Parts: sequence; C-alpha cells; structure tokens
Amino acid sequence: MKHMDKSEFTERKVVFEEKMNGLQEKLQYMGSLVEEAIARAIESLKKQDPNLARAVIEGDDRIDDLEQEIEEKCLEVIATQQPMARDLRRVATLFKMINDLERMADYATSIAKITIRIGQQPFVKPLVDIPRMAFLSQKMVKQSLDAYVREDVELALTVGTDDDEIDHLFGQIFRELLTIMMENPKTITQAAQLLFVGRWLERISDHATNIAEEVIFLVTGEKKNLND
Amino acid sequence: MKHMDKSEFTERKVVFEEKMNGLQEKLQYMGSLVEEAIARAIESLKKQDPNLARAVIEGDDRIDDLEQEIEEKCLEVIATQQPMARDLRRVATLFKMINDLERMADYATSIAKITIRIGQQPFVKPLVDIPRMAFLSQKMVKQSLDAYVREDVELALTVGTDDDEIDHLFGQIFRELLTIMMENPKTITQAAQLLFVGRWLERISDHATNIAEEVIFLVTGEKKNLND
Repeated sequence: MKHMDKSEFTERKVVFEEKMNGLQEKLQYMGSLVEEAIARAIESLKKQDPNLARAVIEGDDRIDDLEQEIEEKCLEVIATQQPMARDLRRVATLFKMINDLERMADYATSIAKITIRIGQQPFVKPLVDIPRMAFLSQKMVKQSLDAYVREDVELALTVGTDDDEIDHLFGQIFRELLTIMMENPKTITQAAQLLFVGRWLERISDHATNIAEEVIFLVTGEKKNLND
Repeated sequence: MKHMDKSEFTERKVVFEEKMNGLQEKLQYMGSLVEEAIARAIESLKKQDPNLARAVIEGDDRIDDLEQEIEEKCLEVIATQQPMARDLRRVATLFKMINDLERMADYATSIAKITIRIGQQPFVKPLVDIPRMAFLSQKMVKQSLDAYVREDVELALTVGTDDDEIDHLFGQIFRELLTIMMENPKTITQAAQLLFVGRWLERISDHATNIAEEVIFLVTGEKKNLND
C-alpha cells in the first residue's frame, strides 16, 4: 500500500466507518429475523400450528440470502477499504457472527419441523421450560449483537450468564422428559422430539455465546470461555 | 492501493500463493486432528473407555488454539497481501472452514462426554450404525478439505452423497432406538444418549457439507444446497 498523508488517512477512516455502519445495520436486521424465527418456531410448537411452522421454514431462505449478501459486503469492504489491524478484526468478527446467526436460524427451522412432526397429538407435558429457554435465547441473540455494535464487554458477559441458565433449564427438561418416558412408553416418540427441541435451543444459545466471546476478544484481546 | 507494474504483480502473487500453501497445510493438519477426534470419540464409546474419552475432551484445546492461529494468519495474509476478488474469497472460504472444523471437534467432545456418562452399563443395542456414521463423517471431513485444496467440484459433490447416507442412517438409528425404549423403559436413559450421538454425527456431516458447498461456490460461483 502506498503511504497516505494524514488527511487521506482520515478520509479513508470516515468512509470505512460509514461502510461499517451499513454492515452493522444489516447485521441487526438479520439478528431481528433470527430472533423472530426462534420466537415463531416455539410459538408454532406451543400452538401446534403447522402453518406457522411452515412459514418459519420458508423464511429461512431470506436469512440465508442475507448471510450471503452481508458476507459479500464484508469482502467488498475489505477489498476496497483495506482496513488494518483492529478494523480488519472488526470486519472479520462480523463475518463470523453472521455465520453463527445463520446456524441459529437453521435450528429454528429444525424446531419448526418438529412442530409438523408432532402434529395435533396432546403434549406429554405442559410446555413451560422450553418457551422459557426460547425467550432467553432470543434475548441472548439480541444482546450479543448489541454488545458487538457498542463494543460492550459487560453486556457480552451477561450473555454468558444467560447461557448458564439455559444449560440448567435443559438439564431439568432432560430429566423430566426421561421420567415421563419411563412412566409411560407411549410418550416416547413425542418426548424424544421435545428433547431435541431443548438441545436445539441450547445450541442456539451456544452460538450467541460464541458471538459474545468474539466481542470480548475484539475489545479486550482476551479469549474468554463463557461456556463452562 | 498504488498501481503495480506487471512484475510487481507477479511477485506479489507468488508470495500470496506461498502464504496460501502455508495456510492450507495448517488447515489439513487441523482437519486431521478433527478426523482423529471423531474416530477416538466413537472408539471411546464402543470400547467404553473413559480415559480415551477424556483424551478427546482435553485434545479439544489444541484444536481451538489451531483455529485461533489459522484465523490470525488469514487476517495477516489479508492485511499484508491485500488479495483481490477470487483470491480474497479463497482466504475467506478457508477462514469459514476452520470455524466448521472447530464445531465438528466440539461435537466429538460432546460424544466423548456421553461415553463418560454411559460408563460401563451394557449397551442397549450393538453399535453398528453409529460407527458407520462416524466412519462416513470422517471421510467427509477429509474429502471436503481435499476438495478445497484441489478446487475439485466433483469431490465436493460426493460429500453431499455421503451426507444423504448419513441422514438415512440417522433415521434408521432413531427409529430403532425408539423401539428399544418402548419395549423396555429401563433402556431409556442410555438410548436417549445414543440418540444424541447420532444427532451429533449428523451435525458433523452437515458441517462437512457446508464446507463442500463453500468449495462449489468458490469454484463455480454457484450456491448449491447439498443438504436436501
């Protein structure tokens, strides 16, 4: 790269920050679609509504396209702005985050497929902990993205705390479902599906935790494991 | 970027290709560790060997470190070589792939934890399909990385075929385990764990399929969904 004088450098930085703002807006939009996908997948399960489940499954294409679009834009910013050091790391972090978001949406789709599979059979247990897990994981998605945009380490750390609660809830659901299965083998098919719903929500929260860890690394340079 | 004359351009390209070779070697080394982690996790399960399971869990740190190291090197190549267009996409693809590899290793760790949880209880069924799934998913890991290094679309497509077989095997394992659970509720705790092993292997193969899709996109510019 040729040497830049100070004003050229400043101008470049201004353009770069504009591009970053654009990327962050798209990131947050993608995040809102993912939150919605999780919420609607669990809603479809609770209400046993296959139409809503199908809407979640169909909506996944939009999220995949958005991932693709943001990825292209990240590469474009790198190629045209040639950010260095920490700015390059900011773009790279965003690039990784959209991948996590896309995976979360896949898990929401997996949950919607379970809604369709369960159909209209009465539930083997009232769904209380699963919606609670879903609520927490949506919150984690939002907070991990906000933590990135604001470079807020405190907020990133709270994502780790919610992840602990999700893990705890999943342990509870797991034990409860196994007990129900043992008491009445007729419940097994559905209970096994609900076990997976719990696992998918746990995985969604793991991805939000990944994002939070990335944010902490970006801001502090320290690798922190929030997932223990 | 300043304009380069032809010889400067060629020289730059030579340096870039050298750096890419270095990155690809590390990628393949990381891939071999991941293959090994999958193989050893399943071996630990089959032999009910908690020590081997613990070795897999401890080995995961090495893989995480390697991901970190390769990621840094990717960013360094981007910052110092400023690759454009397709070369930038090659680095970005590798950057994404190591993330998939790291996730696969996490699933191997999850399987090793199940080995420890199951302990010395006799198996509710002989493990035949699970090792078969593991064998296939290891092959998929290797082939997806080879497809990247050689930019071999044909090879990437075979990864998709193996993924179909894995999905089929998992469907079979799922039905079989549910039947066993229904026949004998005492099997439920272990069978639920084995269900998850099946799911983790399926997820590992999904990540290999992601990589294969990335390779196809890199080479042909077409987004292909191998996971249907």
